[in-house]
Amino acid sequence: MKQQKIAINGQQLQKTLEDFAEFGATDRQGVTRLALSEEDVWARDYFRNQCEELGLYVTVDDLGNMYSTLEGVDRNKPAIYIGSHLDSVKRGGRFDGVLGVAAGLEVIRSIVSHNLQPACSIVIVNFTNEEGARFEPSMMASGVLSGKFEKESMCKKVDTEGISFGDALKRTGYEGSIEHRMSEGKAFLELHIEQGPILEAESLQIGAVECVVGMVCYEIEIQGESNHAGTTPQHMRKDALTAANHCMSEFHTRLSELDETLVYTMGRFNVYPNIHTVIPNRVVFSLEARHQDETVLAEVENIIKKLMDQQQGECTQSAEKLWSRDTVWFESTIVQSIQKSAKTLNYTSKRMVSGAGHDAQFIASMVPTAMIFVPSAGGKSHDEDEYTSWEECERGVNVLLETVLELSESE
Amino acid sequence: MKQQKIAINGQQLQKTLEDFAEFGATDRQGVTRLALSEEDVWARDYFRNQCEELGLYVTVDDLGNMYSTLEGVDRNKPAIYIGSHLDSVKRGGRFDGVLGVAAGLEVIRSIVSHNLQPACSIVIVNFTNEEGARFEPSMMASGVLSGKFEKESMCKKVDTEGISFGDALKRTGYEGSIEHRMSEGKAFLELHIEQGPILEAESLQIGAVECVVGMVCYEIEIQGESNHAGTTPQHMRKDALTAANHCMSEFHTRLSELDETLVYTMGRFNVYPNIHTVIPNRVVFSLEARHQDETVLAEVENIIKKLMDQQQGECTQSAEKLWSRDTVWFESTIVQSIQKSAKTLNYTSKRMVSGAGHDAQFIASMVPTAMIFVPSAGGKSHDEDEYTSWEECERGVNVLLETVLELSESE
Repeated sequence: MKQQKIAINGQQLQKTLEDFAEFGATDRQGVTRLALSEEDVWARDYFRNQCEELGLYVTVDDLGNMYSTLEGVDRNKPAIYIGSHLDSVKRGGRFDGVLGVAAGLEVIRSIVSHNLQPACSIVIVNFTNEEGARFEPSMMASGVLSGKFEKESMCKKVDTEGISFGDALKRTGYEGSIEHRMSEGKAFLELHIEQGPILEAESLQIGAVECVVGMVCYEIEIQGESNHAGTTPQHMRKDALTAANHCMSEFHTRLSELDETLVYTMGRFNVYPNIHTVIPNRVVFSLEARHQDETVLAEVENIIKKLMDQQQGECTQSAEKLWSRDTVWFESTIVQSIQKSAKTLNYTSKRMVSGAGHDAQFIASMVPTAMIFVPSAGGKSHDEDEYTSWEECERGVNVLLETVLELSESE
Repeated sequence: MKQQKIAINGQQLQKTLEDFAEFGATDRQGVTRLALSEEDVWARDYFRNQCEELGLYVTVDDLGNMYSTLEGVDRNKPAIYIGSHLDSVKRGGRFDGVLGVAAGLEVIRSIVSHNLQPACSIVIVNFTNEEGARFEPSMMASGVLSGKFEKESMCKKVDTEGISFGDALKRTGYEGSIEHRMSEGKAFLELHIEQGPILEAESLQIGAVECVVGMVCYEIEIQGESNHAGTTPQHMRKDALTAANHCMSEFHTRLSELDETLVYTMGRFNVYPNIHTVIPNRVVFSLEARHQDETVLAEVENIIKKLMDQQQGECTQSAEKLWSRDTVWFESTIVQSIQKSAKTLNYTSKRMVSGAGHDAQFIASMVPTAMIFVPSAGGKSHDEDEYTSWEECERGVNVLLETVLELSESE
């Protein structure tokens, strides 16, 4: 197949996204399509039907991951994978994940409608349970594929009703065979909404994602002493909330000086006994920080450690590292190719990082990988207000198509 | 009756307190004796038996308040009331409340054992449901007596099992007649543990309590916007917890400059959605402040108002006044008499305020009132670790006896 300028059908893309949005539609323009739920099965069935109408065959692996292959000129060449996930969080948006799968369909439709056959096979993939909203952890199936998680323990994960992932998968009819798992490939490309406000704020159309940033997550505990709020003079208190207040202020001062692209959040914050007439005796809060540069994260950990060694009034404090993950760098040649495609199409773009996790970060350990971002209005995601315009979606899919066509021709 | 130096029997006081501590004893030296519970009835029965053994008659009013009268030489003179409450919080201590009732018994025992008859009658009183731990509000029965609360609505207050105060009272057999309510008196004296650390810290034995301090209680709400903790740059956040942290720091700075005896507490503090990967969009916390001087409390309210008018980053904020109460000043001649009694007995003492609420604050509107405090180890109260030594209790009861004897002789 000689590379030639073709574009996807924007109206067809819109229809596909609107069709998907029916499966688990909420009353506020969002979707609730938890992994392996009835709604997820409807979306999977629709995806399979669309693939079969295109003349593609669909295979399913033992984790429920779906693959639909457009065969290339040379079947023995490693394939290019494109896709994302169809599941959503509860009352999530209509773009997160599904855009990457719908994009795969439109890319294939465009190629097929132009009677082209790529040099290597192109496979659309739908990963099971990316969100982890019904069965934790998130990115479960790509995690098993890449050896990060063990299948046996994942199958035992239960939802709030006590149903295991393994049982739920069986009931859907989407439990396939282990030999269908993806294992190698020429490339994996995931188109996704940014889920952050940067592209919109900078009026850019395309993000060429270089990495999923590393993170550290700590739990900070401050221990004081409860006493009567009316009878204990201020200077005789061991108020854990007052100490936590000092501690948070110190974190803000020191972390904000570190690096302007560092993001850090104290999101979970619990005060005990949490009664208005009782001086708090205990505060426990989370502190997570994300950055692509491991030396910056090491500095964050250093700041936490130093602050824990300082006395906060009459209270004691400690920090426990809950977990951390290293930055996953994507394949630079593919990132370059994405930026080049955007330029070819006259779209504005920038290289950027992903602060959120994606299946791509696990697949990257098996297959050369990169991601394409399109803008999220107000940075909103995991929310019914999540919004990306049809034009923005279309641009993203065109960049995906352009990049796939270029990669398929490269050696 | 001529005033003469007599003292109470410390061993008898200890036995009485130990006997009361059996009713609802916990495994950690505390008591759980919720108002009108089986344990409360045991304590009431014991109190009545002790009174009857002393030859006193016991009356009960329509709220379950118990009165046991030692008749004076002149029955027509207004009586002196002494007492407190027998109910406790869940897993409370063995001194809060019950000390004041046991003290009443020992005062009468001492007078009777010396074959004295006071000029006016002396009445021991046990107020129903001071703690409000089973039926809110606290100081319920003294509140009805003094006209602060309406009996009808109080009777409808239910516990966690849906039992109303009115029904619970009936079941105990301690529902008496409205004509037995106390209405006037020469004085009301309540001996109580301090429930704060001041007497202990200053190595003093007796507190002559001048007032129950006034207070204001506000609820502060900060409204921000949730977003993904990984994808939202720091400068684009509307983090409600960060704004609340600034707000708390400002409160600490400004309130700590106001007056060194002001106590203020942020005790209830809730963060939403309280997920470590989500930027908080809402924080709601309580701010209460207590001081005897109403101009200081007005200044507190002023500080809250001014701070609410200031922008906290990108968030909005508001303050709602939940309630307030004025300082209740006790009868200065009685406070003087308490200090004089302490001096006569060679006990160290000081005038002080009560930061906690007591039945005495309501009774003060009907009858000239004051309170006597004895030290609380570590200021602990409403806790199984609540502790006052037998010697400290004995000193308090001796001051009560001395003061009662002096007041009974005065015109």
